[in-house]
Amino acid sequence: MAAGSFDDPDPHASGSTRGHWLRLCRMGIDTYQEPVVYMRRSCHVCRSEGFEAQSRVQIELGERRIVATLNVVHGELVGHGEAGLSESAWRLLGAREGEAARFSHPAPIESMAAVRAKIYGHHLEAGQIRRIVEEIVAGSYSQVEIAGFVAACGGDHLDERETEALTRAMLEVGERLDWGRPLVADKHCVGGLPGNRTTPIVVAIAAAAGLVMPKTSSRAITSPAGTADVMEVIAPVALDVAAMRRVVEREGACIVWGEAVGLSPADDALIRVERVLDLDSEGQLVASVLSKKIAAGATHVVIDVPVGSTAKVRSEQAADRLLDRLTRIGLGFGLAVHAVLTDGSQPVGRGIGPALEASDVLAVLQRAPRAPADLRERALALAARLLELCGAAARGAGLGAAARCLDDGSAWRKFRAICEAQGGFREPPRAAFVHDVVAERDGRIESFDNRRLARAAKLAGAPIASAAGIELHVRRGERVRSGDRLFTLHAEAEGELAYALDYVRRVPQLIALEPE
Amino acid sequence: MAAGSFDDPDPHASGSTRGHWLRLCRMGIDTYQEPVVYMRRSCHVCRSEGFEAQSRVQIELGERRIVATLNVVHGELVGHGEAGLSESAWRLLGAREGEAARFSHPAPIESMAAVRAKIYGHHLEAGQIRRIVEEIVAGSYSQVEIAGFVAACGGDHLDERETEALTRAMLEVGERLDWGRPLVADKHCVGGLPGNRTTPIVVAIAAAAGLVMPKTSSRAITSPAGTADVMEVIAPVALDVAAMRRVVEREGACIVWGEAVGLSPADDALIRVERVLDLDSEGQLVASVLSKKIAAGATHVVIDVPVGSTAKVRSEQAADRLLDRLTRIGLGFGLAVHAVLTDGSQPVGRGIGPALEASDVLAVLQRAPRAPADLRERALALAARLLELCGAAARGAGLGAAARCLDDGSAWRKFRAICEAQGGFREPPRAAFVHDVVAERDGRIESFDNRRLARAAKLAGAPIASAAGIELHVRRGERVRSGDRLFTLHAEAEGELAYALDYVRRVPQLIALEPE
Repeated sequence: MAAGSFDDPDPHASGSTRGHWLRLCRMGIDTYQEPVVYMRRSCHVCRSEGFEAQSRVQIELGERRIVATLNVVHGELVGHGEAGLSESAWRLLGAREGEAARFSHPAPIESMAAVRAKIYGHHLEAGQIRRIVEEIVAGSYSQVEIAGFVAACGGDHLDERETEALTRAMLEVGERLDWGRPLVADKHCVGGLPGNRTTPIVVAIAAAAGLVMPKTSSRAITSPAGTADVMEVIAPVALDVAAMRRVVEREGACIVWGEAVGLSPADDALIRVERVLDLDSEGQLVASVLSKKIAAGATHVVIDVPVGSTAKVRSEQAADRLLDRLTRIGLGFGLAVHAVLTDGSQPVGRGIGPALEASDVLAVLQRAPRAPADLRERALALAARLLELCGAAARGAGLGAAARCLDDGSAWRKFRAICEAQGGFREPPRAAFVHDVVAERDGRIESFDNRRLARAAKLAGAPIASAAGIELHVRRGERVRSGDRLFTLHAEAEGELAYALDYVRRVPQLIALEPE
Repeated sequence: MAAGSFDDPDPHASGSTRGHWLRLCRMGIDTYQEPVVYMRRSCHVCRSEGFEAQSRVQIELGERRIVATLNVVHGELVGHGEAGLSESAWRLLGAREGEAARFSHPAPIESMAAVRAKIYGHHLEAGQIRRIVEEIVAGSYSQVEIAGFVAACGGDHLDERETEALTRAMLEVGERLDWGRPLVADKHCVGGLPGNRTTPIVVAIAAAAGLVMPKTSSRAITSPAGTADVMEVIAPVALDVAAMRRVVEREGACIVWGEAVGLSPADDALIRVERVLDLDSEGQLVASVLSKKIAAGATHVVIDVPVGSTAKVRSEQAADRLLDRLTRIGLGFGLAVHAVLTDGSQPVGRGIGPALEASDVLAVLQRAPRAPADLRERALALAARLLELCGAAARGAGLGAAARCLDDGSAWRKFRAICEAQGGFREPPRAAFVHDVVAERDGRIESFDNRRLARAAKLAGAPIASAAGIELHVRRGERVRSGDRLFTLHAEAEGELAYALDYVRRVPQLIALEPE
């Protein structure tokens, strides 16, 4: 196919009509989230527009427009007059084989000046933040540029006004649900504590007690499992808004993956980069949490803040600051925020990793003898606060009400019903490869290094390998003898098991023993 | 070819021998600097190691080892038992078609914890900075992670001790030249002023006056042209160390591209990301300048610091701080630094962009009537300071000595000789597409917006399109009549000309007129 026939009839016309046309072909190359376009080195569009490898290229197809990164093809992988698309670019454009799309330079990213100003330590105005968020959602930012913004906001670089503006901007670029109810419950955990998987239990109790709780959860950012990862091994979570509505109308609650619902497109883009940098800042944390809760239509939310020396929030002072900011900014948006500081000194339950944590959750809901008592207690405490905050239980009567829902089986029945409504309940998978790590001497369990345990679980494959992770056999204060099992590594692939084991052997203080 | 035959005989062996083997094939896909590996979705290595799209994969071939980003291929682009490599991965590994390489997980990036600490505002110790630089040079960092480091150091986030440590680390990971001379001259400009291309003239004068001046220059970071870009339109600049030595031994001086010499591998990796973010920080600027000068074997260096409201350094106070830091840290490494503050209020010469600036340089060296007087004066002032600093002229006699070298033709003869020694002198190219921008009313030229002029030149294609850029027809204070030419846009492609013109029309204050 000669390219000439697709030449724009008027290359000197104004920005909106300028550009060149090429036929699209699907390369079958998966680049994850970053859209990539493949063009021949000799392509007339590259030559006339001055595109080269890593150039950002705007592609328009009908009403859709994306910015992709250019990879230049030297051989015959792409035909004359054609441009190849990566899977993500193909999906975003909704392309069909052979369709002609328009290629041009993307508009300059105006808001990068504000990102640079932030890196230099300047205060950003609401309009600047709004523009950054809009351009990120429009796909104008590459991963490198998003990384610049994430790092600029890192630590405590966003003040309260900036955080409020970021929350509002993230809210305004996405969809916002309205449940037509005066009271919609929600729950959130700021994370940092392996195995702290209370959400499915709290939702089940709250719904069993009659509350409306349309819960959206995220996948892991820097941890071996997010609630959406855990829930997904038990039931489908990638529901769209219409499907989510049907579940909530039928059962009063759901536990779905927020990114699939598309409520927080900006947050989703930021989280991907935060995951690579293993970084989320206070301002972005607050904006991320609040924008998601408000977008999901919540009016009352209980927030679990684990505090511990190796948890995400390391001191009560840091926790107070965070809570103060969450509460005050939340109020400005009409959201009642109630925070609960919890013990972040050791992992919760036995499992770390999607399937292992799901097993703990199911054991608590099913009142199994092996159910971890600490997970049950934490879930009950949070559910109690939520019932009281929403007026479903009198002050001081929340714990009793929550425990009744769990003990009489109504929470478990409600959970099963929610799973069925989301597409069907399923049992968590078991890992094909396991390895026990044992105590090398007698002693008493002194402490857990949450960060390194999380790292070991990630090296074993979690959260992508859902059966992978760590199964703990000891708790703080317990006595162990040399040779007793401390934990078991689970992996879906031999290479990953060996890799995690390498790490565990190099870092002996994952679980510290004090001498007897 | 079945993959099984390449399976590692002992997948349970220790980290150094673990891994899987695949045959390499060259994809012919140019991803610029980021190495990419293409593997089949069904590949046994992906499955057993748990690799997925965007995973970082370590590839070992003989003594060479790289970390590449994985793109997963769904179709038949890659055969069974094979892995495809991008051009950069192919080059870095020195691969040949069909060779078998070992694939495994890369070691975790230990120093990212230090990058996060810096984002959180903590002081970094020398050892932490050293480790970051080592891991960047080893290719362990992806572009996103480098962006995190660049942003973390942005603005004035590096203090003097950190800057000194960064300088030392960058120096230690690269090669360091020794010229066996007690006195080796150098010159640097901190940039930010379009067209300020004094280096080729200063080198020619210094060498004509008998100084040894092995000059390495960089390509543009955030500007429309770096000295290496300008020099490259006149003579080859991509010389290796051996070739650079031959030129300096023969002519006493050279003007080559530093990255090709490989003196500052860390700086080169940082600069690529700084270019995308359009950001270079004070600490990184100081470390970048000093490490390059010291690595090139310099003992005496004159630094040009243009100061102006739209130049890189915007106030004398900021300039003093920068100079103080350059001088003190330089002294610690035995480098005598002498800085010259210059006028940064308007572009120097007529051209902005590689070929247009090269024409200005040649006009000054050839004493052509059209030679820009301001470029000549600035080059003479800097050469004078360098001659005095190095003892080649008495105090106060530098300017006379420099002017004599220029006016008697010896600088021009020396420059031609250097060009011939580097591979041959050539005339700068002319752009195929030009467009005059004229004054819309009568007035006097009040000011130039250096940043926006630079941006317009970049949109026109500079520095990659070497003939592209801006040719100025007016100077500050001059009177113009409506319809008089202010400047001419030069481009190598129609699309780029139109794109730059769009920008120029949207930003009317590129050159401000005061009413008559």
